[in-house]
Amino acid sequence: MMSVTEGGGAAALAVVVDSIDKNLDGRRLALIESTPGAELKIHGGLGSEALDEPVRKLMQDALQDPRSHDGLRRIETDAGALELYLEVKRAVQELIVVGAGHIAQPMAHLGALLGFKVTVLDDRPDFATRERFPEAEQLVAADFSNPFADVLIHSRSHILLVTRGHKYDYECLIRALKMDPPPAYIGMIGSRRRVRATYVQLLEEGIGHNLIDRIHAPVGLDIGAETPEEIAVAVAAELVMLRRGGTGLPLKDVERVAERFFSEDTVKGQT
Amino acid sequence: MMSVTEGGGAAALAVVVDSIDKNLDGRRLALIESTPGAELKIHGGLGSEALDEPVRKLMQDALQDPRSHDGLRRIETDAGALELYLEVKRAVQELIVVGAGHIAQPMAHLGALLGFKVTVLDDRPDFATRERFPEAEQLVAADFSNPFADVLIHSRSHILLVTRGHKYDYECLIRALKMDPPPAYIGMIGSRRRVRATYVQLLEEGIGHNLIDRIHAPVGLDIGAETPEEIAVAVAAELVMLRRGGTGLPLKDVERVAERFFSEDTVKGQT
Repeated sequence: MMSVTEGGGAAALAVVVDSIDKNLDGRRLALIESTPGAELKIHGGLGSEALDEPVRKLMQDALQDPRSHDGLRRIETDAGALELYLEVKRAVQELIVVGAGHIAQPMAHLGALLGFKVTVLDDRPDFATRERFPEAEQLVAADFSNPFADVLIHSRSHILLVTRGHKYDYECLIRALKMDPPPAYIGMIGSRRRVRATYVQLLEEGIGHNLIDRIHAPVGLDIGAETPEEIAVAVAAELVMLRRGGTGLPLKDVERVAERFFSEDTVKGQT
Repeated sequence: MMSVTEGGGAAALAVVVDSIDKNLDGRRLALIESTPGAELKIHGGLGSEALDEPVRKLMQDALQDPRSHDGLRRIETDAGALELYLEVKRAVQELIVVGAGHIAQPMAHLGALLGFKVTVLDDRPDFATRERFPEAEQLVAADFSNPFADVLIHSRSHILLVTRGHKYDYECLIRALKMDPPPAYIGMIGSRRRVRATYVQLLEEGIGHNLIDRIHAPVGLDIGAETPEEIAVAVAAELVMLRRGGTGLPLKDVERVAERFFSEDTVKGQT
């Protein structure tokens, strides 16, 4: 299971821990995606398609739901109730930071902290160094005219464009937008004006609105970030939100515990 | 200037770099708040109240605006135009993490990364250690029945309650709520149910709605955070937002560059 996820794949394993038919106890079914986007392959089996099918469905759902946890699950099947221990090895997500400047450093750091496999690209070998990026998995001396030549991009890749200049961001952006399958995230730093200039250029190049709409720009959540560290936190929060869901609003305002609570009290007081 | 901010205060300095009256060049005016909440004291002067008054106003505004930067400013006064170099030393903000468990570690780390002076409190000396919190400014062995006995809390203190148990959080919370002046931020981790139980208890203790409303709970931005690192990023983003402003929504949605741009295009195309 571990080797699968290190290679960029994902896996789910279900072990029968209880059922009416005691012969089933300990039987296993595994669902393995060896590399990102590869077909899910089934290994093992519980003895009949009537049992395998609902368990396979359960595992598929667990793999797709970023909030699912390992643990016991009880399911009803046409062949009776089953208690399973479910283990999910979710795919490693990758963060590719394009440009190794002052924002890239805290960004690579936070990416690694959040469990991303981090790659830092730059065309200046003095910048993409081990000293400046101790937690990066990969440091790549890239040519920005073909930046991803030495980096495998897949559906779990998160690309952040923070090069030193608009033209480099643009060249990388257009490559990233044309990828098939598309990466999970393409973020580009820049003021509203710079973002707009990029869109003009993309339209002139014949890139459609639907592709342009995939770009996260300006990048990150709107928290007024100014320093490189603050910008990295804004982007890290956006990456977590993409991974897990949410609105970005303060949880205090989303949950409104006090508000709900006090209004219920008021209602009770009135009756 | 530096020693002022290390003590928790703030300062602004203005130096005349150009004016009609060449005698003014190099004259200085400083505005210093020696400790948090202390009165702003004026040092130096430009020679007349007609010059000092607008410069003092400029410095006061700069100190209050978290987005203001050092740099040249040109202002018009009743005594003529002045060009100034303005330097702002904003107060150091403090983060007091109460509870030294698994969320406290990435939180203290991110707090330090964002420039907060971090204090970690716990009643278990084995937890609040230098090894676990290398970036903390202060590690305090606290008694949770009087947790802030050895920590100076002021208007720039940010208190995060992440102890191992509801009753500890509660004891610290009630102390934090009764402080005068109030700290800048009181965040408390916990599910909606736990937060609600806390509010019931606070009300029974006679704490009013206006005080309860100051509590950030559940803590952090709504980004679906689950792991300790993700929770720390959610809280860090909330702290930056408090410091700088913003909505928490993705900047892409706030700015709507593509949307505005394309709709303008459509309008142009129709005329």
